[in-house]
Amino acid sequence: MVYLFDMIKIGDLVLLYKDEKRNYLLKVESKKFHTDKGIIELEKLVGKTYGDSVETNLRERFFVLKPTLYELTMKVKRKTQIIYPKDLGIILTKATLFPGAKVIEVGTGSGSLTTALANFVRPNGKVYSYEKNKEFLDNAKANLEKNGLSSWVEFKHREVIDEFEEKNVDFIMIDIGSPWELIGAAYKSLKSGHRLATICPTFEQVTQTVFTLEEKGFVHIETMEVLLRRILVRRGKTRPEQKIPSHTGFLIFASKIH
Amino acid sequence: MVYLFDMIKIGDLVLLYKDEKRNYLLKVESKKFHTDKGIIELEKLVGKTYGDSVETNLRERFFVLKPTLYELTMKVKRKTQIIYPKDLGIILTKATLFPGAKVIEVGTGSGSLTTALANFVRPNGKVYSYEKNKEFLDNAKANLEKNGLSSWVEFKHREVIDEFEEKNVDFIMIDIGSPWELIGAAYKSLKSGHRLATICPTFEQVTQTVFTLEEKGFVHIETMEVLLRRILVRRGKTRPEQKIPSHTGFLIFASKIH
Amino acid sequence: MVYLFDMIKIGDLVLLYKDEKRNYLLKVESKKFHTDKGIIELEKLVGKTYGDSVETNLRERFFVLKPTLYELTMKVKRKTQIIYPKDLGIILTKATLFPGAKVIEVGTGSGSLTTALANFVRPNGKVYSYEKNKEFLDNAKANLEKNGLSSWVEFKHREVIDEFEEKNVDFIMIDIGSPWELIGAAYKSLKSGHRLATICPTFEQVTQTVFTLEEKGFVHIETMEVLLRRILVRRGKTRPEQKIPSHTGFLIFASKIH
Amino acid sequence: MVYLFDMIKIGDLVLLYKDEKRNYLLKVESKKFHTDKGIIELEKLVGKTYGDSVETNLRERFFVLKPTLYELTMKVKRKTQIIYPKDLGIILTKATLFPGAKVIEVGTGSGSLTTALANFVRPNGKVYSYEKNKEFLDNAKANLEKNGLSSWVEFKHREVIDEFEEKNVDFIMIDIGSPWELIGAAYKSLKSGHRLATICPTFEQVTQTVFTLEEKGFVHIETMEVLLRRILVRRGKTRPEQKIPSHTGFLIFASKIH
Repeated sequence: MVYLFDMIKIGDLVLLYKDEKRNYLLKVESKKFHTDKGIIELEKLVGKTYGDSVETNLRERFFVLKPTLYELTMKVKRKTQIIYPKDLGIILTKATLFPGAKVIEVGTGSGSLTTALANFVRPNGKVYSYEKNKEFLDNAKANLEKNGLSSWVEFKHREVIDEFEEKNVDFIMIDIGSPWELIGAAYKSLKSGHRLATICPTFEQVTQTVFTLEEKGFVHIETMEVLLRRILVRRGKTRPEQKIPSHTGFLIFASKIH
Repeated sequence: MVYLFDMIKIGDLVLLYKDEKRNYLLKVESKKFHTDKGIIELEKLVGKTYGDSVETNLRERFFVLKPTLYELTMKVKRKTQIIYPKDLGIILTKATLFPGAKVIEVGTGSGSLTTALANFVRPNGKVYSYEKNKEFLDNAKANLEKNGLSSWVEFKHREVIDEFEEKNVDFIMIDIGSPWELIGAAYKSLKSGHRLATICPTFEQVTQTVFTLEEKGFVHIETMEVLLRRILVRRGKTRPEQKIPSHTGFLIFASKIH
Repeated sequence: MVYLFDMIKIGDLVLLYKDEKRNYLLKVESKKFHTDKGIIELEKLVGKTYGDSVETNLRERFFVLKPTLYELTMKVKRKTQIIYPKDLGIILTKATLFPGAKVIEVGTGSGSLTTALANFVRPNGKVYSYEKNKEFLDNAKANLEKNGLSSWVEFKHREVIDEFEEKNVDFIMIDIGSPWELIGAAYKSLKSGHRLATICPTFEQVTQTVFTLEEKGFVHIETMEVLLRRILVRRGKTRPEQKIPSHTGFLIFASKIH
Repeated sequence: MVYLFDMIKIGDLVLLYKDEKRNYLLKVESKKFHTDKGIIELEKLVGKTYGDSVETNLRERFFVLKPTLYELTMKVKRKTQIIYPKDLGIILTKATLFPGAKVIEVGTGSGSLTTALANFVRPNGKVYSYEKNKEFLDNAKANLEKNGLSSWVEFKHREVIDEFEEKNVDFIMIDIGSPWELIGAAYKSLKSGHRLATICPTFEQVTQTVFTLEEKGFVHIETMEVLLRRILVRRGKTRPEQKIPSHTGFLIFASKIH
């Protein structure tokens, strides 16, 4: 049984999936989409439901799947490094994040983490996302528009030094090269007893950030890294994948006290 | 500035934190809590805010922190194995999970994953959680009551064979020893184009589950494992922790097609 | 002080090292060697010692280093997959391998592991190395000639089915796609109480091999995998490398009993 | 067929193996050995060969296996941390180590690495092993006596500051808390173009050691860590082990230049 409200319409997001290499996050509109297996007229998706398939002009079949947070965050148009789902996942469990939460993010980058935060503060929360680079910010805005989550984000084209404009927020994520420089500002804006998170790739950033957190009134400071390895399951030939990203960054979490 | 509505009151959840070994998830009530550093009268927390501290009768200080999903899921009273945050995190990014979603979980176990799902379907969604073992179910119910998330869960004391009662759900999580036995039932209840997830510890479970998914109308099947390693940051002595859980289970995700 | 016998002469092996990307295992002979940093006349190395440097015609400096087993095994000319040092290292500790040992290896492949075995059975031992593919065997012979270790290897161009020619050997290494097929033959040739090793990439190969070992009179069966991650140490920017080979194969070891 | 010279005699080393938890490295002598499965009179092993079994007074069977380097190094009597086989293995491939090599090791510790080095410099090489702690040194000596490798080791009860007594050695291993303090001394003793190795647990030790190596005339500096995970292969229940040592130390290798 297919409900009318389950039918795909103009503006909906879909994952067009052929295989692990060919899968695309797209907005349904009157446009042609080109793949190496032929062309798909996206308007043909209207009236279908998720789980249906669509054929290219070369009669190659693609499935129409419901996108997950994984695709929403990984398939943003990238102008910067993004946060990977393996790291994003642990942030979601270690943050003081919930529907209705007010959170600050700095910097926005390509809007990958912004997407995840917006997704989980819905329907009453808000993400205040700071980025000093205009080009990155415009790209991130376009990504959030496409993802359908821009109503839960307030973008701020501003370089923060001493203070964020928002106070009493539930969670702060710092994703810049020198996170220690914004710990003072974060302290002023974060609700007491709540969490701050940051991610940095090098040992030196980790120690400088952690020691600054210790000095500036944070406790329950935790540092960790996450590895993800796929298993390729094929009859008689099941094995782990051969290459993995072995390092993206170290994640640091801390709780503010008075 | 402390807002009145930020003050801790009877029934609130707090994380009483002294150090990485001594931290407790507690509900504020008129009760004494015993630690190896002395006794805390929980009623003394009323009127404080998160970020404040409290002293035991031995004058040892504990901080009053806002709990995160990490503690809500890890500190359930356990009658079974639970799903670890490292695995939970990747599930949150790979599932078709969002505020308002209807999801099925089987089996409930100790309610750890139930907690995470309930947290993220709020405020309009619902988790239908099946468990055939009465003792486990009662324990899980008590855990969700404590966590304050039971309004978003409907517990079902039932063994599923052919069919779940709910249809057209957004996401299904199977966490039982032989997940392949419930893939047929899951297919009937899951919205097309949406995701199913499962976790299993052994190679044999992985291959049997994946091959069953392939036969029963699922695509975009992915199998993976996640490792998490903490870094102990101490002046002049920073190093990774020495022992880690190196294996909990392999995670499998798949999308239903018509 | 430089001893006469430390001077490099025609036929010696050297590692010409510029940086982690430009380093070459070479035999000193009257020949020109071309790099992207210019040409080196290898005869100019004669009379130098290890630790000296040499310049290309473009005045770029390369250091003349003593090769290690790492380069001897990694820099063989490859016609097949080779065994990586991370796996080789654990084999060296888990094998009944020592100076004077007689060992069987099947198949030879590109001679990478053959090199390591030959290195450690010196000066009185011998490696019997079986390979059914003539092209692979000829390439491996050339690799061992270059490495200077061919005196400790007897190459055998033969497909083994029931029996190896040698009996009472100290260690057997099976490196073929279906190791279980040669466990019977290995049992006949291996000294009792001594070790057999094999490496295989898939889960299915692992289980079939281990169950065959259990049936055919082996105990102390161990299966493991090894991961190696480099750390890039640079002032203020120290971090783990970003991509690693996350899977080469699972190593299996077992001891023969009567 | 059993050769006379294969028969076990007084003084031989054996691995008495029952299962992965009960296996013991022992020297055959007229002594009783107590296990939780009963008592074994070691003299009963004389005349047996490896691969035979022996019974305790409670009729529990143990197999008599040929020890490998793994057991020789892991089963030393420990007074200090030892180097694990996973790390030892990569050292064996990255060192300028071969039969006949002269090598320096500092500090001896419990003699675990000393055992590995002695094993592979045989029959004409020598290990010069420095240790300032008399208790550790005596213990290490006893371990090497038991392992049958003491003829290839010269123990030195001495604290090194500026200089080792040996010059022109093929390989130097530094295993002390502040390896950078001995890099100057190592430089004077190591053959040019040859390798030095060290292992240290913390980030700060790694950076200080690497920067000192860079200053003191070393190139081809490499830092790495190794993880080993066992797979438990059981019919229908094959899975990785649940806990692993996730960090022992970072290994550093470097080549001396003029």
